Amino acid sequence: MQKVNIGIIGIGGRGHSLARLIYDMSVNKDFPYDVDITAICDIRQNKAESGAEDARQNTGTATKAYYNADALLDDPNVNAVIIATAWQDHVPIAIKAMKKGIRPAMECGGASSVEECIELVRVSRETGVPCMFLENCNYGREEMALLNMCEQGVFGELIHVQCGYQHDLRVLLADNWDAGDYRIFHHIHRNGELYPMHGLGPMMKLLKINNGNRFTSLVSMSSKARGLNEWAKENRPMGHPLQNKTILQGDVVTTLLKCQNGETLQLSHDSTLPRPYSRNGHVQGTKGIWKEDNQSIYIEGVSPHDTWENFHEFIEKHGYEHPMWDAYIKSGVKEGHGGMDYLVLCEFMKSVATMSEPPIDVYDSALLKSITPLSEKSIALGSHPVEVPDFSGGKYIAR
Amino acid sequence: MQKVNIGIIGIGGRGHSLARLIYDMSVNKDFPYDVDITAICDIRQNKAESGAEDARQNTGTATKAYYNADALLDDPNVNAVIIATAWQDHVPIAIKAMKKGIRPAMECGGASSVEECIELVRVSRETGVPCMFLENCNYGREEMALLNMCEQGVFGELIHVQCGYQHDLRVLLADNWDAGDYRIFHHIHRNGELYPMHGLGPMMKLLKINNGNRFTSLVSMSSKARGLNEWAKENRPMGHPLQNKTILQGDVVTTLLKCQNGETLQLSHDSTLPRPYSRNGHVQGTKGIWKEDNQSIYIEGVSPHDTWENFHEFIEKHGYEHPMWDAYIKSGVKEGHGGMDYLVLCEFMKSVATMSEPPIDVYDSALLKSITPLSEKSIALGSHPVEVPDFSGGKYIAR
Repeated sequence: MQKVNIGIIGIGGRGHSLARLIYDMSVNKDFPYDVDITAICDIRQNKAESGAEDARQNTGTATKAYYNADALLDDPNVNAVIIATAWQDHVPIAIKAMKKGIRPAMECGGASSVEECIELVRVSRETGVPCMFLENCNYGREEMALLNMCEQGVFGELIHVQCGYQHDLRVLLADNWDAGDYRIFHHIHRNGELYPMHGLGPMMKLLKINNGNRFTSLVSMSSKARGLNEWAKENRPMGHPLQNKTILQGDVVTTLLKCQNGETLQLSHDSTLPRPYSRNGHVQGTKGIWKEDNQSIYIEGVSPHDTWENFHEFIEKHGYEHPMWDAYIKSGVKEGHGGMDYLVLCEFMKSVATMSEPPIDVYDSALLKSITPLSEKSIALGSHPVEVPDFSGGKYIAR
Repeated sequence: MQKVNIGIIGIGGRGHSLARLIYDMSVNKDFPYDVDITAICDIRQNKAESGAEDARQNTGTATKAYYNADALLDDPNVNAVIIATAWQDHVPIAIKAMKKGIRPAMECGGASSVEECIELVRVSRETGVPCMFLENCNYGREEMALLNMCEQGVFGELIHVQCGYQHDLRVLLADNWDAGDYRIFHHIHRNGELYPMHGLGPMMKLLKINNGNRFTSLVSMSSKARGLNEWAKENRPMGHPLQNKTILQGDVVTTLLKCQNGETLQLSHDSTLPRPYSRNGHVQGTKGIWKEDNQSIYIEGVSPHDTWENFHEFIEKHGYEHPMWDAYIKSGVKEGHGGMDYLVLCEFMKSVATMSEPPIDVYDSALLKSITPLSEKSIALGSHPVEVPDFSGGKYIAR
């Protein structure tokens, strides 16, 4: 086992919440891996300085501050980085890290192009350095129970799944605009499945994508964009620029993906209209169906005929809690999106410490990131079907 | 007002349940239109004879029995027909009826080709004979409350809707096979959105399709077909032919439609997997969202922040019941899919008696019927986008 010397690149809101979880790993004697935050980088110098100072105070490590990623990647005391920058920098920085022998973990956000995803895989294979995607929802309690159930065949043969990111971000995006922050500009300049990973990450595991299955094609369709303009007109002082700014990103973008083994997946992006939060979960096979929005499940021969059962009661009654969550509940669930942030970080630390393949690997990472530019392409071509690359280069067949 | 002399073509399960509702109209002195069932036709002679006898006994009319549609259409005592035959005969018979000056109402089921839908419209315009589609769900209580709410602007500007036909038909389809009945053969020989109308009919009214809006294109994607074979293996004696018959129709077919005014619609066909019934309803605008599967609604500024409210309580609290249903409840709801069968029949009788345009007219009928062959085309072409014809020939702009 090697020591894990983490550099965090990008110490905004997300970087900071991850840092706090790593403080705990760093000082907790029971944590199985030797972890330190040795460097923190942000192009905003004050953020880098205060982030490093915070890490030093909380962990006792001599955490260094950097103002650009290249400098951090030259630090010999860094062997793994967490990339929590603006979306468009994730893949370029991950590529640079691998070229320096440093293991990258990328935060959520889509790629700028399919080409950079192909390059990500090429560099990982050429350098032998693995790359992980920090998809926390892969470690959500419900998602892991569903994975457990799929592995036990509860749903029979999987036929169709749905997922998505249905999260009213209008206030956050307006604040982005006021702060000159990056996320709103993706809505202004792009139209596609901007944030596929929270839904797609867990569903890819259920469908065994890159492990005996793959996506072959997708089509995306976008609605008109009305939510942000209308909201800004009613909730910001007259003359606020978001009121009349042309927004390219449709309020609801729907994407359909086809799998090599015949399953279909429907993905929804819906972040600029008023609505309660949902990840649009739906898992359906020859034996039954689970639906997130009504918190219900129906399994033929188990559930009363044609009648939904409460999902949580079903899990408890039949003992389908995932073993990882069973243990996690006993040891005490940490903060961070219901506990899943800690679990995905643990998996990254484990893969670095044990020098093993991460569970969401470079093929998964490239695929998750590529859905954004692929969906943009489909929409730009009038919902034309677009080939989804096999980033594994045929390896999915035998893994 | 003219007398309505109805001929029913196809007196299977559906034709018979409609006939029973018409008996009531025929003998009820309070019914506002003068209605009789003057003829009944079925290619199964015993069905035609017993259907006519049943009508005679229940209404006192001298109902004639016919064994082919052409003969019925030559009966001078018929001025309107209800076509409840196998799907593939709906449009051809409707075209023949209009050519004889008889008003047709078609039951549910998709067309065989886009061309026959174009011909349906051409003949209606040439002969001046209107054609109605008997989409009962347009008169469902929830659907009409939603229409009422949309017209009052409760959802703001509509952005995205979903609907579908999610109905476990495995037993019915296996019985079809055993009886040599037609419906299973559509599953064997076709792959597409076989039954779009229950979802699409009401949503078209919300989106003002053919009245200021239209569908411009669609894409469809089909999952593999496993449900029927697996079910037959487990629930029919060994050697039953459905166990190993190749089924073309995917278990879940998802279709995305784009509107001229920028809205998107997601349509689901899902009839060969175990699941509770749903029409997959979802209405979403700039002010809020309704979702059928959790029976919930969220309207910004009205509902508690980010919190679903029970839809039925919401309707009652805010008085959004549709006036037609308010009156219907007071007068006594009839049998037939929760009462909506009676309402859609009333609308047809009214349009014939008053010699006026039916509320689901020939443009709507052609469009509803055409979605099936259009989705088949898209699937056959690898989810290629397919143009949806403007059956109104530009009239949608000014209606």
